[in-house]
Amino acid sequence: MLLTIIYIIAITAEAMTGALSAGRRSMDWFGVILIACVTALGGGSVRDVLLGHYPLTWVKHPEYLVLTCCAALFTILIAKWMRHLRNIFLILDALGLIGFTIIGCQIALQMGHGFVVSAVAGVLTGVSGGILRDILCNDVPLVFRRELYASISFVAVICYWLCLNIGMSLELTVIFTLIFGFVLRLIAIYFGLEMPKFIYQEDDADSASSTDKH
Amino acid sequence: MLLTIIYIIAITAEAMTGALSAGRRSMDWFGVILIACVTALGGGSVRDVLLGHYPLTWVKHPEYLVLTCCAALFTILIAKWMRHLRNIFLILDALGLIGFTIIGCQIALQMGHGFVVSAVAGVLTGVSGGILRDILCNDVPLVFRRELYASISFVAVICYWLCLNIGMSLELTVIFTLIFGFVLRLIAIYFGLEMPKFIYQEDDADSASSTDKH
Amino acid sequence: MLLTIIYIIAITAEAMTGALSAGRRSMDWFGVILIACVTALGGGSVRDVLLGHYPLTWVKHPEYLVLTCCAALFTILIAKWMRHLRNIFLILDALGLIGFTIIGCQIALQMGHGFVVSAVAGVLTGVSGGILRDILCNDVPLVFRRELYASISFVAVICYWLCLNIGMSLELTVIFTLIFGFVLRLIAIYFGLEMPKFIYQEDDADSASSTDKH
Repeated sequence: MLLTIIYIIAITAEAMTGALSAGRRSMDWFGVILIACVTALGGGSVRDVLLGHYPLTWVKHPEYLVLTCCAALFTILIAKWMRHLRNIFLILDALGLIGFTIIGCQIALQMGHGFVVSAVAGVLTGVSGGILRDILCNDVPLVFRRELYASISFVAVICYWLCLNIGMSLELTVIFTLIFGFVLRLIAIYFGLEMPKFIYQEDDADSASSTDKH
Repeated sequence: MLLTIIYIIAITAEAMTGALSAGRRSMDWFGVILIACVTALGGGSVRDVLLGHYPLTWVKHPEYLVLTCCAALFTILIAKWMRHLRNIFLILDALGLIGFTIIGCQIALQMGHGFVVSAVAGVLTGVSGGILRDILCNDVPLVFRRELYASISFVAVICYWLCLNIGMSLELTVIFTLIFGFVLRLIAIYFGLEMPKFIYQEDDADSASSTDKH
Repeated sequence: MLLTIIYIIAITAEAMTGALSAGRRSMDWFGVILIACVTALGGGSVRDVLLGHYPLTWVKHPEYLVLTCCAALFTILIAKWMRHLRNIFLILDALGLIGFTIIGCQIALQMGHGFVVSAVAGVLTGVSGGILRDILCNDVPLVFRRELYASISFVAVICYWLCLNIGMSLELTVIFTLIFGFVLRLIAIYFGLEMPKFIYQEDDADSASSTDKH
């Protein structure tokens, strides 16, 4: 129940960020709607296709698809005021990230998978909508280059897993993980915490071109 | 029967446009074949994977795969004359768009899905081959930025749905939707009709970089 | 048994080349791990999703996923010495290409598919990990633009198929195809053999923009 509410908030927020990305590329309304849907529902779809978990969420509940379309069109209307709302969006996005992660993790566990696969399912649900959005907009996915985001999704999975394994009830686990991950994400934004980067450059042009051939 | 003929024309035409795209990027013959196959068969594959509709068309009928490969190689041979044929291609492509849309829509309806999912299936079948082609060629998908294309696919779905629901026979519905969508697309090309674009720009650098973080 | 060993070598080598690609784009550690996993396990995942062959390899054997993550982190550690190792990598990569191809082909045959689908499954398993890596790094996939690579995967499929059909035992077929494809790839690298390229350019700006509209 709580998760459903958070899911609805999350897909709405993600749809709106997707619509803004499309707007930055001057796409037409159809592009805006498509990018919004992919951003909001793509993460869960990738997870479900990889795990063979049919039917997909938006196939089972087409109303979520309608909601993301409406959110996209609404974003076009209120675009002028969007930049005043960006703090609200950062917060909704943080909530969505953790909510998506918990839902993805839960579905994998219900299918009988172990920790590794559940962790992948959780993180994929959380981050791959944004990755698909950036691929469609022809960017290097931002998720790989900004402050802690995917790693917080991963930490949330560990938290969720530990809580369940020490015998906490499912409701408590969900609430605790939500608060824990949400606070962690807000801390990461506030202090601009980043993962260490791996910067690799070949020393000379010759070696660069050769290694490219891999 | 009519749909099968249109399907074959459509995948051939799409394979050839895919091959030309690959040629613009100076890809080798293998790249040309792969891009051609993805353009022609990718839309249906995306639909089938998302709906869990196995086996995929080209797995069940590998002859379609062979056909697209031949079309790609044939395009390399006749590339010199291709620009004289581009009006023919625009027409074949329009036919393909509507044909793909009807087929996608029909498959979703046969699986028991409702209007929203069928509409998505139809539009996805029509446009995602071209989107995948543009992603592989590292472009922002053209479908989001040119004259009415995906929206015509959507209008065709609505037409198809309405015809069926007012009790028209399946054959008549298919023929009527084909003609209706095809004429609409030709009108859109002729007059250069476009969807309104959503252009979003942050007012200052600071806000731009922050919103990017979503 | 032999194939399992080759598979493990291959995913390790591919994970490391993926990690280096991510390093060239200055991604953070999470991005490095994700690109490594996609490069190593993406080819098999694409094949399994398209054929409806569930569960996916890394879902069934999460230890492979852990291995690729470790290989990615190890690459970050030894990045300084990587360019001295690039000949070793070219060899491991060649081994991986043929190993992946044989595995993909075998799975499709076991599912009862014919030559065309098995060939596609083999080539996809061999090359699509690298294609996904290049899409995520926002490059035009290298596989389309360098010396013989995918075509060797295809020749290996034909060799495998012929050997089986003249009545050779499965073990012998695997070993023979491995050696044959491996040697072919080394020859292609050594002599810089390339597929012919298809270079297509519209003669005038007008025609270019119109054909783009396909």
